[in-house]
Amino acid sequence: MEDINLHFTGDMHAITAANNLLCAMLDNHMQQGNALGIDQRRILIKRCVDMNDRALRNVVVGLGGKINGVPREDGFIITVASEVMAILCLAQDLTDLKARLGHILIAYTYDGKPVYAKDIKADGAMTALLKDAINPNLVQTIEGTPAIMHGGPFANIAHGCNSVRATRLALKLGDYCITEAGFGSDLGAEKFLDIKCRMAGLKPDCIVVVATVRALKYNGGVPKTELSAENVPALQKGIANLRAHVENMRKYGVPVVVAINRFGTDTDAELQVIDDCCKSLGVEYALSEVFAKGGEGGVALAKTVCSVIDSTESHYAPIYDLDKTVEEKIETIAKEIYGADGVTFTNQAAKSLKDIKALGGDAMPVCIAKTQYSLSDNAALLGRPTGFKITIRDLRLSNGAGFVVAYAGDVMTMPGLPKVPAAEKIDVGADGMIHGLF
Amino acid sequence: MEDINLHFTGDMHAITAANNLLCAMLDNHMQQGNALGIDQRRILIKRCVDMNDRALRNVVVGLGGKINGVPREDGFIITVASEVMAILCLAQDLTDLKARLGHILIAYTYDGKPVYAKDIKADGAMTALLKDAINPNLVQTIEGTPAIMHGGPFANIAHGCNSVRATRLALKLGDYCITEAGFGSDLGAEKFLDIKCRMAGLKPDCIVVVATVRALKYNGGVPKTELSAENVPALQKGIANLRAHVENMRKYGVPVVVAINRFGTDTDAELQVIDDCCKSLGVEYALSEVFAKGGEGGVALAKTVCSVIDSTESHYAPIYDLDKTVEEKIETIAKEIYGADGVTFTNQAAKSLKDIKALGGDAMPVCIAKTQYSLSDNAALLGRPTGFKITIRDLRLSNGAGFVVAYAGDVMTMPGLPKVPAAEKIDVGADGMIHGLF
Amino acid sequence: MEDINLHFTGDMHAITAANNLLCAMLDNHMQQGNALGIDQRRILIKRCVDMNDRALRNVVVGLGGKINGVPREDGFIITVASEVMAILCLAQDLTDLKARLGHILIAYTYDGKPVYAKDIKADGAMTALLKDAINPNLVQTIEGTPAIMHGGPFANIAHGCNSVRATRLALKLGDYCITEAGFGSDLGAEKFLDIKCRMAGLKPDCIVVVATVRALKYNGGVPKTELSAENVPALQKGIANLRAHVENMRKYGVPVVVAINRFGTDTDAELQVIDDCCKSLGVEYALSEVFAKGGEGGVALAKTVCSVIDSTESHYAPIYDLDKTVEEKIETIAKEIYGADGVTFTNQAAKSLKDIKALGGDAMPVCIAKTQYSLSDNAALLGRPTGFKITIRDLRLSNGAGFVVAYAGDVMTMPGLPKVPAAEKIDVGADGMIHGLF
Amino acid sequence: MEDINLHFTGDMHAITAANNLLCAMLDNHMQQGNALGIDQRRILIKRCVDMNDRALRNVVVGLGGKINGVPREDGFIITVASEVMAILCLAQDLTDLKARLGHILIAYTYDGKPVYAKDIKADGAMTALLKDAINPNLVQTIEGTPAIMHGGPFANIAHGCNSVRATRLALKLGDYCITEAGFGSDLGAEKFLDIKCRMAGLKPDCIVVVATVRALKYNGGVPKTELSAENVPALQKGIANLRAHVENMRKYGVPVVVAINRFGTDTDAELQVIDDCCKSLGVEYALSEVFAKGGEGGVALAKTVCSVIDSTESHYAPIYDLDKTVEEKIETIAKEIYGADGVTFTNQAAKSLKDIKALGGDAMPVCIAKTQYSLSDNAALLGRPTGFKITIRDLRLSNGAGFVVAYAGDVMTMPGLPKVPAAEKIDVGADGMIHGLF
Repeated sequence: MEDINLHFTGDMHAITAANNLLCAMLDNHMQQGNALGIDQRRILIKRCVDMNDRALRNVVVGLGGKINGVPREDGFIITVASEVMAILCLAQDLTDLKARLGHILIAYTYDGKPVYAKDIKADGAMTALLKDAINPNLVQTIEGTPAIMHGGPFANIAHGCNSVRATRLALKLGDYCITEAGFGSDLGAEKFLDIKCRMAGLKPDCIVVVATVRALKYNGGVPKTELSAENVPALQKGIANLRAHVENMRKYGVPVVVAINRFGTDTDAELQVIDDCCKSLGVEYALSEVFAKGGEGGVALAKTVCSVIDSTESHYAPIYDLDKTVEEKIETIAKEIYGADGVTFTNQAAKSLKDIKALGGDAMPVCIAKTQYSLSDNAALLGRPTGFKITIRDLRLSNGAGFVVAYAGDVMTMPGLPKVPAAEKIDVGADGMIHGLF
Repeated sequence: MEDINLHFTGDMHAITAANNLLCAMLDNHMQQGNALGIDQRRILIKRCVDMNDRALRNVVVGLGGKINGVPREDGFIITVASEVMAILCLAQDLTDLKARLGHILIAYTYDGKPVYAKDIKADGAMTALLKDAINPNLVQTIEGTPAIMHGGPFANIAHGCNSVRATRLALKLGDYCITEAGFGSDLGAEKFLDIKCRMAGLKPDCIVVVATVRALKYNGGVPKTELSAENVPALQKGIANLRAHVENMRKYGVPVVVAINRFGTDTDAELQVIDDCCKSLGVEYALSEVFAKGGEGGVALAKTVCSVIDSTESHYAPIYDLDKTVEEKIETIAKEIYGADGVTFTNQAAKSLKDIKALGGDAMPVCIAKTQYSLSDNAALLGRPTGFKITIRDLRLSNGAGFVVAYAGDVMTMPGLPKVPAAEKIDVGADGMIHGLF
Repeated sequence: MEDINLHFTGDMHAITAANNLLCAMLDNHMQQGNALGIDQRRILIKRCVDMNDRALRNVVVGLGGKINGVPREDGFIITVASEVMAILCLAQDLTDLKARLGHILIAYTYDGKPVYAKDIKADGAMTALLKDAINPNLVQTIEGTPAIMHGGPFANIAHGCNSVRATRLALKLGDYCITEAGFGSDLGAEKFLDIKCRMAGLKPDCIVVVATVRALKYNGGVPKTELSAENVPALQKGIANLRAHVENMRKYGVPVVVAINRFGTDTDAELQVIDDCCKSLGVEYALSEVFAKGGEGGVALAKTVCSVIDSTESHYAPIYDLDKTVEEKIETIAKEIYGADGVTFTNQAAKSLKDIKALGGDAMPVCIAKTQYSLSDNAALLGRPTGFKITIRDLRLSNGAGFVVAYAGDVMTMPGLPKVPAAEKIDVGADGMIHGLF
Repeated sequence: MEDINLHFTGDMHAITAANNLLCAMLDNHMQQGNALGIDQRRILIKRCVDMNDRALRNVVVGLGGKINGVPREDGFIITVASEVMAILCLAQDLTDLKARLGHILIAYTYDGKPVYAKDIKADGAMTALLKDAINPNLVQTIEGTPAIMHGGPFANIAHGCNSVRATRLALKLGDYCITEAGFGSDLGAEKFLDIKCRMAGLKPDCIVVVATVRALKYNGGVPKTELSAENVPALQKGIANLRAHVENMRKYGVPVVVAINRFGTDTDAELQVIDDCCKSLGVEYALSEVFAKGGEGGVALAKTVCSVIDSTESHYAPIYDLDKTVEEKIETIAKEIYGADGVTFTNQAAKSLKDIKALGGDAMPVCIAKTQYSLSDNAALLGRPTGFKITIRDLRLSNGAGFVVAYAGDVMTMPGLPKVPAAEKIDVGADGMIHGLF
């Protein structure tokens, strides 16, 4: 576990190095005569570190006079939020990886023309730095079950699940391959289905929607501090949220199973509410008791999923077609998945959209950055909100990854450390054993 | 070879991470109330990257308002120039590593008090990040000879050779253990002998001074473009430089052997000059033809070294005692090794020296940062210069590494990329083979 | 004219100096031990220059190490946008001036406490720098008519008209005193009546609403390029705007006169539309032909105004009471003057409002910063818009001036120079005559 | 007195405005497409304020994205240190003023070409801003004696005395015209004679060297705290300093008079030492008791000066010819005036010198920036030091002023405020009277 959480196989370091090589070459290009006429006020790529380092969010670089670079505003993001991470996860092979790296939009020129990574010849060396990191990593659970861990793109400004190559390898090696998609189905599953599966030609046989009694009670209005107490009426109210997720996933043409991640505080009366709901939806479900019982606790769920896969055919199709415009794609997701009445674009978004369309953005899928606390873009709207519009405040072209990011809210791409960082408690004994991680 | 030059075993990344964790915790401490009263104008530790990135030499961090950190001037150095690298190379074991990391002087408070890494509780987590990197790495030459590669502290602001643990491991595993010390003996060997051997309790049996006919002709005044032509008079003039290095090394009480790294352009008449010189010095010598002939080309030298070790006893002792003051130590090195008449301290150096003495610097060895192109601190003085004084323009306490750095010139701790970076030519084929490294 | 537009009597320079002395003392306080614990991330006061200098909008100051100040983000505004300007214009006398300067809120401490200018003892010296600038300046028109020019607070983030002392002096010296209030009556007159008159105890006898046929056609939807052509239907549509201004001003209990600033392109048919409108409103009006005919062209208007003053009693009262909350005051202005349905406060505004209330802001009048192109906060809504809400995105306490600024839009407080600055054409002959101003 | 020390006639404000207009136009030029290709890393002109504001010494401007300027390092100097101030003082008339302003070297292009103020068409508007400031200001002493106060160029990086036009006006209006030259004769008088008189065609009839018993005792080694006690031996030692100044001034071919600025603590025995010295030098001298007795106290000195002027012909000539190189000019001053053995140029100085020569600097007089505490460049060398060399660490072309500044030491061009700024004590009464200036 420690190895996974520290340097693991070095993938994060390799991604960091590849991203920062690109940035160093960009600044060097400007310093060495700026043949391309790159506008230092319009640089899009940021340096990254694999560290929570708030002080690096907004920096000024290139200070110190003529020999020390071109002064400009810059910022560091956390490595997982970099487009290089998203690319590593979407690349089919080294050739595709290099092509995608080369297509990263890094800046505009003084004349407003786009500058890509390949324009400063950074793609080859970046690929060299990533030639091993592109290979999936095999680990095992405490019980010895194999698991493939590979890639971790930010679940909001990228597609939020593991690499295409990891999924393909798992499909080759195992009888069943399960992919975890972060956050709710409106975020993780939507991106898995509309971005990753589409790009990689994957066809899922089953979707498992994971729910908890606690979260559904929260969606029914119960404060976080009171979630342990039985509250059937709140659950009955909040279960509209589960209903939305199930109905949404069905729109993809893939069979759906509900997994209830059971907590010790769940009561029979509460579980009955879920039972009723699933029955009324006509969806199979099972309890998952993995946390309490280990692998044994997952057998019921596994059997249910296998049974559904065996008995029901999947007709997977993305929720929108690629030949729609960016606006139409966003509107489809907003209406079909979020349950919104429509989409509003701010002036800034309209401006960015124009630039992105000029660079071919209409041909790409969209990746909406949105709060994970609500189906809407307002974290306070619980359950299954209606009568709202989504506001897109800006957009960004992840040209190498191959999607358009639409911001329906602020996204923090560089976390800070808390008042007492966990690092203060971490220690190593003379025997090399690490203490204080928990 | 590529693996060594790319991510290798991840040591560089681990050092980078440990150093930058310290910096992130420092900025976080100031952001979260600054209980220690750290003066943001007097922070000594810098962030690092393992990248030639000129634009990061001088930066301003912490911009963007209250939630984004405390604004201050910062800078990045290249990872090998970090004190963490020096510490990794000098640490005896994990316990010593953690102690040294904790002793890094990172800042001063508003009251002028020193702040160490352990004061912000960063030492444990830094050690955790380095727990694997502290172990030496075993590689092999093309001929299959084992070699231990571990650590690469900057040869100027640190002691410039591999880790203590690597040397110890090699001493355990092999019949003979050879350590390469960077630059001329006035820099690399002096630091190996006065810093690393002293700290680690190592007792070298033999010192091999490596020379080339070309370098000695250069020291005799021949321009670099004409070094391939025979020039016996210039060699006879420049050989004073070899004489100085041999005489200097003998002051350590260790038997000396001269190795001539033979080039194809060396003529018999030139080699004869060296032969004469070595005889007059009474020093054994041998030709090394490893570049042309591989391992076979090193047999003569190896035999000479073994023979000297077998026949001559070593009475190694450092050139200065630890109980001298910093000024006395510097003066000893300047006079005994560089051949200077004395040492001048600038006002800034005097000011820093006062601070360093207050923090116990007098008890430590000194590490002089000086040009490698001359025995003096003036790169233009060739051969064996006399009648000069060394100017120390500033000093710095590497408190965790355990030495005082004295700057006898400017030292660039963050290189920049050239007009056409090597990275532009690097590429990877679909087969994963890297091209363009040469 | 040139003298007025260049240095005039030095008032601008004095205000600039007073403001910048305050800033220098603030930075010096932090540098010299920061006894008050001022948080460099929460400084509210900005330096100013009397120059359009875009590059100074966002700067980082205090760089260069320990002796050169505390690094922090800062910005320059144009002198007229400074609170010192607003204060100079609202001060009754030197004693009041000093008190107001002392009350400027300049920063918060690390503990979140407010810091005022008097806390760093800057008020006395600032007053000394302004002791002459507080006196009104007497100039004359080309025809020799006396005019008092004094002060020029930004019409958006301040009350936008000349100084209280200038008005008082004019009231003493002349039979009639006219004050120009910038922008439309929704901005300039509202602030003159609700802020300046209230604070200074002034009781206006008459309000002159100035209109042009061109502007009313613009409000009727005519593009700027076609305003010279007769367009009676558009004027009939746009005249709703004039109607709104007249009805709004009547709410203050002061007699209203409409002045039509006649252009050569106005047609009889168009003027007839205005005539009809004013008659239907029961408001006196007159043509002003001052631009074409000089003073003679203003006689008709003057007579109308005098006649109204003689015949109609004024019962001036502000539109809102001071004992209302900030929100209520804003809502009153929004509904009564702008014609809005209500007011929305952003999260940021709510946050600022809380701070401002804690510092006593509820007791002050409000100064709304809003576009001058529409009665609403949306420049595109012409005529007399309805069915809209005003959005307050942030608030700021001008504690010395004595009002709360509410931002209903972005306000640029530092203009930039255009592609070809007017300065490029300005020249001076050997005789001292300036050329190129026009 | 207060008026003089506050805004006076606004000259400082006008100079500040002219300088900052130039800077704003420069940044605007870069922002608006940068037609000249100005290198933002090589801008020489700095903004200025008439304020001690340490935090503005080193700043970064142009932050905030594309619309807010080009990011770059900048700094503010105090207004008197600006080249515009030096130019105002050296300009013959408006035409000359404009020409000089236009010739200010403000930056280099990316191609290394010089950029002058006129290249961005700033000279005309700058002249317009200075059209009144160029005229001398007439004030009077408490006794009613007229005095002309005009200009105050920094005494170190500029020529350090009032304007050419002020001197000319005084020569027209009075029987005798006296110019005060700042610091010792090695700084103020040397620049007055070699720069101002030469440029303006002035021919001084007499030089008055002002000395005090106290300063000469200080030069004899007496600590500042003991200068009030009689110390004839120290005075006899320190008087070598006076001897140097007198002998130096005689080299200009102008009659010299020594004025002893008498203090109450001077004793007869001490005054006798001076009497002896002057007699041995054959130089006329007189006591000045103006501080104690007002105008009456200056009669003796005045009579002596008048008598010398009447009886002795002046053959004024500068100490060096303009057709010498910059190095030769500096060497002449160093040897003839400072008493040095020679001059050393640092690498940086050699580099700057090359640039300056390429731009025609060899044709200009030099203006050496040096400590005022010693005839040498080392403040600690008192009396009449010998056996030293002057080190020039850098040079700068004041191309509009028309001289080359050579830095023989650090010069602070932006002072900071002390721990307790004088401003804290300044106040104004309700009557407009300023208190706390003393």
